[in-house]
Amino acid sequence: MERMLISETPKHIGESVRLAGWVHIRRDHGKLIFIDLRDRSGRIQMIIVPDHTEAYETAKGIRNEFVIEVEGKVKPRPGGAQNTSILTGGVEIEVEKLKVLAVAENILPIEPSTDISDVNLKTQLDNRQLSLRNDKVNAIFRVYSSLLRAYANAMHRDGFLEIKSPKILSSATEGGANFFKIKYFDRSAYLAQSPQFYKQAGVGAFERVFEIGTVFRAEPHFTTRHVNEYTGLDAEMGFIEGFSDVMDELEKVMMFMFKAISEECTQELALHSAEIPNMVAIPRLKLTEALQILEQQYGKKMEDGVIDIDPEGERLIGEYVKKEYDSDLVFLTHYPTVARPFYVMPNEDPQFTDSFDLLFRGLEIASGGQRIHNYDQLVKNIKAHGLKPNDFKHYLDNFRFGMPPHGGWGLGSERIIQKLLELKSIKEAILFPRDVKRLVP
Amino acid sequence: MERMLISETPKHIGESVRLAGWVHIRRDHGKLIFIDLRDRSGRIQMIIVPDHTEAYETAKGIRNEFVIEVEGKVKPRPGGAQNTSILTGGVEIEVEKLKVLAVAENILPIEPSTDISDVNLKTQLDNRQLSLRNDKVNAIFRVYSSLLRAYANAMHRDGFLEIKSPKILSSATEGGANFFKIKYFDRSAYLAQSPQFYKQAGVGAFERVFEIGTVFRAEPHFTTRHVNEYTGLDAEMGFIEGFSDVMDELEKVMMFMFKAISEECTQELALHSAEIPNMVAIPRLKLTEALQILEQQYGKKMEDGVIDIDPEGERLIGEYVKKEYDSDLVFLTHYPTVARPFYVMPNEDPQFTDSFDLLFRGLEIASGGQRIHNYDQLVKNIKAHGLKPNDFKHYLDNFRFGMPPHGGWGLGSERIIQKLLELKSIKEAILFPRDVKRLVP
Repeated sequence: MERMLISETPKHIGESVRLAGWVHIRRDHGKLIFIDLRDRSGRIQMIIVPDHTEAYETAKGIRNEFVIEVEGKVKPRPGGAQNTSILTGGVEIEVEKLKVLAVAENILPIEPSTDISDVNLKTQLDNRQLSLRNDKVNAIFRVYSSLLRAYANAMHRDGFLEIKSPKILSSATEGGANFFKIKYFDRSAYLAQSPQFYKQAGVGAFERVFEIGTVFRAEPHFTTRHVNEYTGLDAEMGFIEGFSDVMDELEKVMMFMFKAISEECTQELALHSAEIPNMVAIPRLKLTEALQILEQQYGKKMEDGVIDIDPEGERLIGEYVKKEYDSDLVFLTHYPTVARPFYVMPNEDPQFTDSFDLLFRGLEIASGGQRIHNYDQLVKNIKAHGLKPNDFKHYLDNFRFGMPPHGGWGLGSERIIQKLLELKSIKEAILFPRDVKRLVP
Repeated sequence: MERMLISETPKHIGESVRLAGWVHIRRDHGKLIFIDLRDRSGRIQMIIVPDHTEAYETAKGIRNEFVIEVEGKVKPRPGGAQNTSILTGGVEIEVEKLKVLAVAENILPIEPSTDISDVNLKTQLDNRQLSLRNDKVNAIFRVYSSLLRAYANAMHRDGFLEIKSPKILSSATEGGANFFKIKYFDRSAYLAQSPQFYKQAGVGAFERVFEIGTVFRAEPHFTTRHVNEYTGLDAEMGFIEGFSDVMDELEKVMMFMFKAISEECTQELALHSAEIPNMVAIPRLKLTEALQILEQQYGKKMEDGVIDIDPEGERLIGEYVKKEYDSDLVFLTHYPTVARPFYVMPNEDPQFTDSFDLLFRGLEIASGGQRIHNYDQLVKNIKAHGLKPNDFKHYLDNFRFGMPPHGGWGLGSERIIQKLLELKSIKEAILFPRDVKRLVP
């Protein structure tokens, strides 16, 4: 008999089936043993009666999280209507045969069948093999898988080619200190902290490219929104009129992803009491306007002369646009030149750039804008940023043979999940997160 | 006027359109200037006549690879039937306005509009920004994008969850020397040379997982089939009966991908005169059988007592299965225990393992098999391989709380492309390849 998924059982009342999965909970009720079996499709209650001697004897020795295989009959379940959405409604299994495929230790550091919301994050991460089996934690990664797929689908739909760019670089470009250094045979190399230069190169050949790839950041942060390794959702598009084209595209992609998740992950979203953002046009505020709003409406003033926003300011602007526009998202635009890398297109007012950040519920999830596509202007801007054009020879080569006006974004996949499911830390949205202190499991 | 893609023009005969792209070729015919314009959707011939003075004067200064924007009328093209499939058939543009968006240098190290097959690979890679614009080279990455998408689609269809596992590891596990070492804040760390341990962890929580991710290999190889950084197509599945289940699934996925590519990339495949493999059942030969065939039919004998196959042997077995089974693919199975890592499931005959390699046209493109899922057996096997269980504490944790029988594969995305398009080197299938000597561009 072929194994059947639990979710299929309601269609097979009266039939014999074979199921396999984990023992979610085992309960003894007098002579009867009840087991809730869990597989990737759902959960189902099973009854083992003493009449089926062998199965019954085996069931006595079974504990939570054992992996078992059973054969039995699908029966309508009394009071099936009261079942939760996760427990397969309406049916149960009367077990005839039972086999243990793998045992679990007696003491579980985390009990997946219980509410583990109050188990601290460190314990959850140290025992990832168990916390991932908890419904609510498990759901995070189902949503994440849906997000990855939706991003690729949106980009393909809009004519973007999927590329994979190198993660090992010969030099720590962009002038940053936040590169990990590696030993590369007889020399040193660095881990890419963005596919920026390569996706721009992609524009020169394919016009529109996207990449889903690992991003490495050697930043010694200890916050709920930073990790040292994450998955970036990058895109770059040629033949734009200005950076509003980039925002238009990103807005479409965000809405596409939210829609896909809302359709594919109803149950997962419900487990987290998560609400899909309203599908309203994303408001676009100049950073300077945002700072004015912060000062006038929230009494929050940045340091004199500094045109920049801090995480607290981003949070408040998130509140503001929710109140004023009923939007969960907002583009902040026109960041000052001093706060952006050399490749960003200057605005008509050269103090500012044609750039944006996208905030989701008050958290920056994306950065983007138009890039400089003219060789001479780029060389000039490299110098203006106190950098040496010679250090960017290979990057500059992309602009020697006809590069169209272009722009793009870098979008953090895990931050979307963090805010969508209102997780306290971004680390909850990563299977095996990496931070300054954590490299295991 | 909105920009239109070249491929749309045949639907707009008689209308004014705006196009943008690269100058593929510029030709002067007496008073007339002809430009083949190239965008991501195709190519089209444009005529600039002296009557449109401004456009004509601008056109005179234009060279190949300039980025331009034009407005003009779509006209039926005389002799359109002779057009190649790439040049948009049947129509041409009479240009009225022309604007240069970006210039290209006078001397192109590589001329994209010509056949560059005989330009050596080093020059092609050193000038990637130009070689990628060549039709045939460009086509490689369109097929690659299609492959990535098809892999994800096949896996989703079959209930696999997409995961992203960490690439920075605390220790160089699997006992190999082929790890890149990195400086991670105040300590050392290593780059993952496979998502093996993490996808197995994924089975414990999600049953079926797949990952498309960067793989780093610090192997000092100088061959046409090795690079030091590539994109792995990994999968792992729980509740298998044996490793033939894994081969069954991989076979389905391969056929799905080939079918998708054949449908989406007709033109790209034609450019490479590439043939999609026959959709026949993939033959499965024991490695020992394969060695016998090599000896009896090709007079090729491995060193005495060595049960292993070399690249030449793989190539010949590729020929053999093509001849005998009309198959481009073959599974070689039951590799000896000494040639496989400690986590591979031993066969009933403990000299061998329940493992396989998949060869495509004589090149190994995937490795896989069943894994050990029992904690005690795994500890024993770690020791038997001369390794220390203590070094695998976090990996072993996955097997303490109920791990079902499982198996999976690691599949090299670029090798599939290499053999599908019959490219001489795997480096041709990578946008910006990394080898022992090459870290740029």
